Amino acid sequence: MGLKNDMKSFNIRPVNRLMDNQIQEIIDNKTKPLGSLGRLETKAKRIALILNNSQPVLEHPVIFVFAGDHGIAAEGVSAYPSAVTRQMVENFRRGGAAINVFCRQHRIKLHVVDAGVDFDFEDKTGIIDAKVNRGTRNFLHGPAMTHEEFQQALQKGAEVVNLHAQGSNIIGFGEMGIGNTSASSVLMSLICKLPLEECIGKGTGLSNAQLMHKFLVLQRALERYKANVPDWMDLNQAIPYFAGFEMVMMAGAMLQTASLGKVIMVDGFIATAVFACAYVMNPLVREYAVFTHLSEEQGHAKLIEFLQSEPLLNLKLRLGEGTGCALAYPILESACLFLREMASFESAGVSQSS
Amino acid sequence: MGLKNDMKSFNIRPVNRLMDNQIQEIIDNKTKPLGSLGRLETKAKRIALILNNSQPVLEHPVIFVFAGDHGIAAEGVSAYPSAVTRQMVENFRRGGAAINVFCRQHRIKLHVVDAGVDFDFEDKTGIIDAKVNRGTRNFLHGPAMTHEEFQQALQKGAEVVNLHAQGSNIIGFGEMGIGNTSASSVLMSLICKLPLEECIGKGTGLSNAQLMHKFLVLQRALERYKANVPDWMDLNQAIPYFAGFEMVMMAGAMLQTASLGKVIMVDGFIATAVFACAYVMNPLVREYAVFTHLSEEQGHAKLIEFLQSEPLLNLKLRLGEGTGCALAYPILESACLFLREMASFESAGVSQSS
Repeated sequence: MGLKNDMKSFNIRPVNRLMDNQIQEIIDNKTKPLGSLGRLETKAKRIALILNNSQPVLEHPVIFVFAGDHGIAAEGVSAYPSAVTRQMVENFRRGGAAINVFCRQHRIKLHVVDAGVDFDFEDKTGIIDAKVNRGTRNFLHGPAMTHEEFQQALQKGAEVVNLHAQGSNIIGFGEMGIGNTSASSVLMSLICKLPLEECIGKGTGLSNAQLMHKFLVLQRALERYKANVPDWMDLNQAIPYFAGFEMVMMAGAMLQTASLGKVIMVDGFIATAVFACAYVMNPLVREYAVFTHLSEEQGHAKLIEFLQSEPLLNLKLRLGEGTGCALAYPILESACLFLREMASFESAGVSQSS
Repeated sequence: MGLKNDMKSFNIRPVNRLMDNQIQEIIDNKTKPLGSLGRLETKAKRIALILNNSQPVLEHPVIFVFAGDHGIAAEGVSAYPSAVTRQMVENFRRGGAAINVFCRQHRIKLHVVDAGVDFDFEDKTGIIDAKVNRGTRNFLHGPAMTHEEFQQALQKGAEVVNLHAQGSNIIGFGEMGIGNTSASSVLMSLICKLPLEECIGKGTGLSNAQLMHKFLVLQRALERYKANVPDWMDLNQAIPYFAGFEMVMMAGAMLQTASLGKVIMVDGFIATAVFACAYVMNPLVREYAVFTHLSEEQGHAKLIEFLQSEPLLNLKLRLGEGTGCALAYPILESACLFLREMASFESAGVSQSS
């Protein structure tokens, strides 16, 4: 079963471009110089088109943090041990991580999803249990997951959105998974057809020596993949070969969000690499996305360029967890609010420009 | 009476650099890779130093919008007629402008200050009356204001902060004044010692032809100033010669904010030009400032560079009114919140990096 088949299960409609002029006119009649709200104007328009409403209201925002472990972490590609994935899941449910703080601040509902953490949580309070397996296999030696696991992860991602984002029309996507910048870099290289060097970065904070090691490991993995998988250029093969469970599940969740006509907030490097996978599966998903920030992780700028998009914030973040989504959320809310609440030149009795 | 004398009336203390290491240590022990919250970390530290508190809480945020008219507007340097200053003040008090929308969103108290609008408001409800005069004189033909008016504006700015920002420890500064990009460009050119061409931009949205006209008018004004004022390089002379009442009053308010040990949020091009004037009067003011965004107005990037600072947002705004302050406020709040609320590696039982 390939991606072509899965595409059919995500029925994404193009947004209603007929509203484009109508919304632009509303924006241009607001009491401000033409275009002077910059990116707030483009985001307001984007959200209005997605929600098919010229007076959009963001409702019950949700952020999902998908967590999973990666076999490749055994090769020492991260500055942190794999155990940190589980430890951070514990931190999320106790409310002590950055994403908890920012979600509380903006009253965003946070859901932590166990997509494939290498640990059996006895107490599942505060965790959505969607575990596919206890971590992926090491892609230096073969595929990270089977095609059945891939399908399962994709499907569970869609289900998570169906079950846990009811009443919400804007969903942010974050992740936690030691080793997932590695998986993302290799996939970016294959999807964007860019040399691995341009897709790889320091992740959570590697030294230069550690970065070189990471590069060599990933290069070897990529060579072996190309040598052993006959149709290696087929992304149907590549995604399950390298991705993590949290990544595939996020891709399924993003595609489902778009098919439900909701706004997708994309976080940093990993979430954007996942989004690129979703985009490969169904290019229409792009119409539903807002890229919340430009990460400090090296490959992110080119990944965003490949997707012909622009990030909203540039705060030099490289944390993941969906933190960029949470920080950008109030600005997206501002975009909707100015569209709904600002006076027009006529209603306010303000003269227009010469 | 020169700026040297005024400086004494603003007694700004340097921030307590001894806290620097202590705050950095707190930040580095949070459950996240070192430095991974990027600019949030530098802003958290800045605010902690200003408020002299390693667990800073932003209290009762206030934004002042200073409004005033400019004699130079008679030369057709703006895309809008002078009447728009008054009309926008009306819009502010009816709650229909962009800054009203964003202040309501973030529960920021908005104060509109009549520093020198060319109109007598019969009903002063919702306006702080600090009018120095009904607009400045046209600086193409002589000084915009007298030194007495300058002193009065500076003093009233300080008073406004004393009276209307009690209980607040963070104050944003915005403006409304048709013609004030012109005044700001000339002052920037003199303060930063940059050619006028590099300091001038399209303001509220001039055509290229209108921009050339603006350039010629300002060039002529600058030549006449240099020809007629013997000590023209003295910024004591230049600021009252070119500035608007709303600008000088804002400078006084900024200096007072710093002297009270509160955080200054600087908006876009005009507010930054005003800040540069305040910086000329007392360089210590810079330790108390956060530059909220990079404006699309051409000179802004170089002005910020001159002040050796970095803007927080880059949303391609060019609206003024303090809108950048309001949009950046939740991110400054996020910075304080992560510092106060995030778990440490030890408290959360998370392994540190290798």
